[in-house]
Amino acid sequence: MSRDLIGNLIICQSGGPTAVMNSSLAGVIDEAVRHDQIEGVYGAINGILGILNLSIVDLKREDASIITGLRTTPSAALGSSRYKLKEEDLEKILDTFEGYNIRYFFVNGGNDSMDAGNRILKFAQEGKYDLRVIGIPKTVDNDLLHTDHCPGYGSIGRWLAIATMDAGRDTEGIDTADPIKIIETMGRDTGWVAATTSLVKEREEDAPHLIYLPEIPFRLEIFLKDVQTTYNTLGYAVIVVSEGLRGEDGRRIIESKRSIDMDSFGHRQPGGISQYLVDAVAENLKIKARFDKPGTIQRSSVLCASTTDLQEAYLVGKMAVRYSVEGKSGFMVTLERINSPQYQVETGLVELEKVANKVRKFPGEFISKDHNFVTRDFLNYLTPLVGGELPRYVRLKKYPVIRPNSTKRRRDD
Amino acid sequence: MSRDLIGNLIICQSGGPTAVMNSSLAGVIDEAVRHDQIEGVYGAINGILGILNLSIVDLKREDASIITGLRTTPSAALGSSRYKLKEEDLEKILDTFEGYNIRYFFVNGGNDSMDAGNRILKFAQEGKYDLRVIGIPKTVDNDLLHTDHCPGYGSIGRWLAIATMDAGRDTEGIDTADPIKIIETMGRDTGWVAATTSLVKEREEDAPHLIYLPEIPFRLEIFLKDVQTTYNTLGYAVIVVSEGLRGEDGRRIIESKRSIDMDSFGHRQPGGISQYLVDAVAENLKIKARFDKPGTIQRSSVLCASTTDLQEAYLVGKMAVRYSVEGKSGFMVTLERINSPQYQVETGLVELEKVANKVRKFPGEFISKDHNFVTRDFLNYLTPLVGGELPRYVRLKKYPVIRPNSTKRRRDD
Repeated sequence: MSRDLIGNLIICQSGGPTAVMNSSLAGVIDEAVRHDQIEGVYGAINGILGILNLSIVDLKREDASIITGLRTTPSAALGSSRYKLKEEDLEKILDTFEGYNIRYFFVNGGNDSMDAGNRILKFAQEGKYDLRVIGIPKTVDNDLLHTDHCPGYGSIGRWLAIATMDAGRDTEGIDTADPIKIIETMGRDTGWVAATTSLVKEREEDAPHLIYLPEIPFRLEIFLKDVQTTYNTLGYAVIVVSEGLRGEDGRRIIESKRSIDMDSFGHRQPGGISQYLVDAVAENLKIKARFDKPGTIQRSSVLCASTTDLQEAYLVGKMAVRYSVEGKSGFMVTLERINSPQYQVETGLVELEKVANKVRKFPGEFISKDHNFVTRDFLNYLTPLVGGELPRYVRLKKYPVIRPNSTKRRRDD
Repeated sequence: MSRDLIGNLIICQSGGPTAVMNSSLAGVIDEAVRHDQIEGVYGAINGILGILNLSIVDLKREDASIITGLRTTPSAALGSSRYKLKEEDLEKILDTFEGYNIRYFFVNGGNDSMDAGNRILKFAQEGKYDLRVIGIPKTVDNDLLHTDHCPGYGSIGRWLAIATMDAGRDTEGIDTADPIKIIETMGRDTGWVAATTSLVKEREEDAPHLIYLPEIPFRLEIFLKDVQTTYNTLGYAVIVVSEGLRGEDGRRIIESKRSIDMDSFGHRQPGGISQYLVDAVAENLKIKARFDKPGTIQRSSVLCASTTDLQEAYLVGKMAVRYSVEGKSGFMVTLERINSPQYQVETGLVELEKVANKVRKFPGEFISKDHNFVTRDFLNYLTPLVGGELPRYVRLKKYPVIRPNSTKRRRDD
């Protein structure tokens, strides 16, 4: 494989959007135009679907102001998709690459996407087509193996940390009427996302009071006991649950039964866990409960994005180009935390097949002993990723006023 | 009624929290300490309940840094409540006021709270107890009569405008997998809150595409037709619904049947409209849908608060004190928009009984002809309230690349 492979580059955005994935796109474009061996810089519309449908755009023709604007525009500017590659697609993709002389293929996505990248590369190698494939990590789920963390995660974490502060103060302020609040976060299979809500907790009264993750089999009777205990102590409780909570049989507590809600990977849309728990609290504990389910808003906020995350997303995009022009292929770019007093990362590489289709569960050592919170070690891991100071709120000291011992009638009669 | 009535002041925070109600509290405290005739500055813990339970705190003893911090701390720092005043409470309240020599009573809340303030004042007058009562408007619902708008509204509007931009870009980015999104906003009886999501729409593809308000009887078959039409045009649709949507019989489409979910005013907790509509879209149109229900997060974000709203909330708190030391009583402070090229407001007064228990519906002239959007007039009304520039996102121009007409085999074989 020659180092000066000349041809065009194409990038796919894949899977669920994040606040920072367009930063990775900007990083790829900004770096690619600096290398003579990369001629055209192309984007596939809606990920792999764009390659299959020949829906391909020229990113070099975009105005510089648009490329800069990508760094503060959420979601997937090229359009994304969740499409499971079929065997018969591979020949078609290779034919397209050949037709467009595409020699650099970048996929920005999660573990499904790394699998797609790997299969396309293997197929190209079998066809003796010289192609360099690099995976650029992207997932709010933070569930890719062999990288310290994934771009997108710090930003959803920052959003949820602030939202949990806000929702917590809200419940504390009106606990006389609405004492129990459930916050449902993303996280179909892992607890990484739900766990970020713990970041702001400094005192017992701070939200969240309880966190339930899919890694721990959910038992309703224990949940109700935990809620009652917190309520008895504080008079209110803010409870975070991951959308993907599973029972002891390993199946989701609640999920859609509709075939329309299954994606091409066979993943079913979770949904309804919050309402289920609100009903369970009201009916079993006779305490009023409500829920907040921020849904996709949590993953697509640039206003609350982590500056660290934005920078790292841009960095992995740039580095993908550099590694590929150096001759690397078949790897995903990783973020490696340097052991130093100040948080620092450097990029590395891991073979796509070591990441493809694998899930990094939320580690047991990050889960508290009673299974309803996270550990200090997790907070140390998380803190630098959310990018700087969070809002600070005050509480009144509430100095009591004692009723004066006056018997004097003050009324005018 | 003498102008230099000497005694103590008490303030109640009432009803659902907002991002800016503590700014009104800070305004009251900052102004009250400047007037010699106001001796103690007290707060009632959990609104009227604090007066009934003698849970009263001394706000003058709080550190200055805490009072300043209130202006950037969401929710109700004193605690709020939703408590419907009983006849027998009035004597008890007056007795407390007498015991504590409370001569200035401020209630920060909505139309229920203005009713409570009015009844307490009438009862004091009957008992010939010299008391000055001022209402300080507060409601994200923006449904108080005789004021241009209500503190809290600009901030929920700003939050929802940004969240709808984000959720809209999210759907646009992954419409190949998740084409329909429902965003459920607050608004039990009126459409003011849901309508704010329209602020960011500049082009047809921008979210939201459809908005449904409680003022217009909801008809599922029309909703489904609207959704199908938008989907056919754009390939996706972002639909905003108010939590309080009502059918042609005037009853909520979906609400909790549990007695625990009814507050002391007999208002029932709405809930479940989004899931109902997601199911209706999936089952009738065979299109996958999901929903975002930000819940209380939308009303309690200081990070997204409108600076205009924060300033006005502080202003109405200060002015409540000024009006009362001038001898005014039995009024709510209002915000009046001055007819000028630049947005400007001044405060005024309206009798509490003109506001008490009345609801200002979202006006018909602000609703589009086909009942699924708002008018330009509404946007002109709303824009200055949300406080300055919103984020600006870019879209790629997407210049197509045509497959070259090359027949040359590029593979090495």
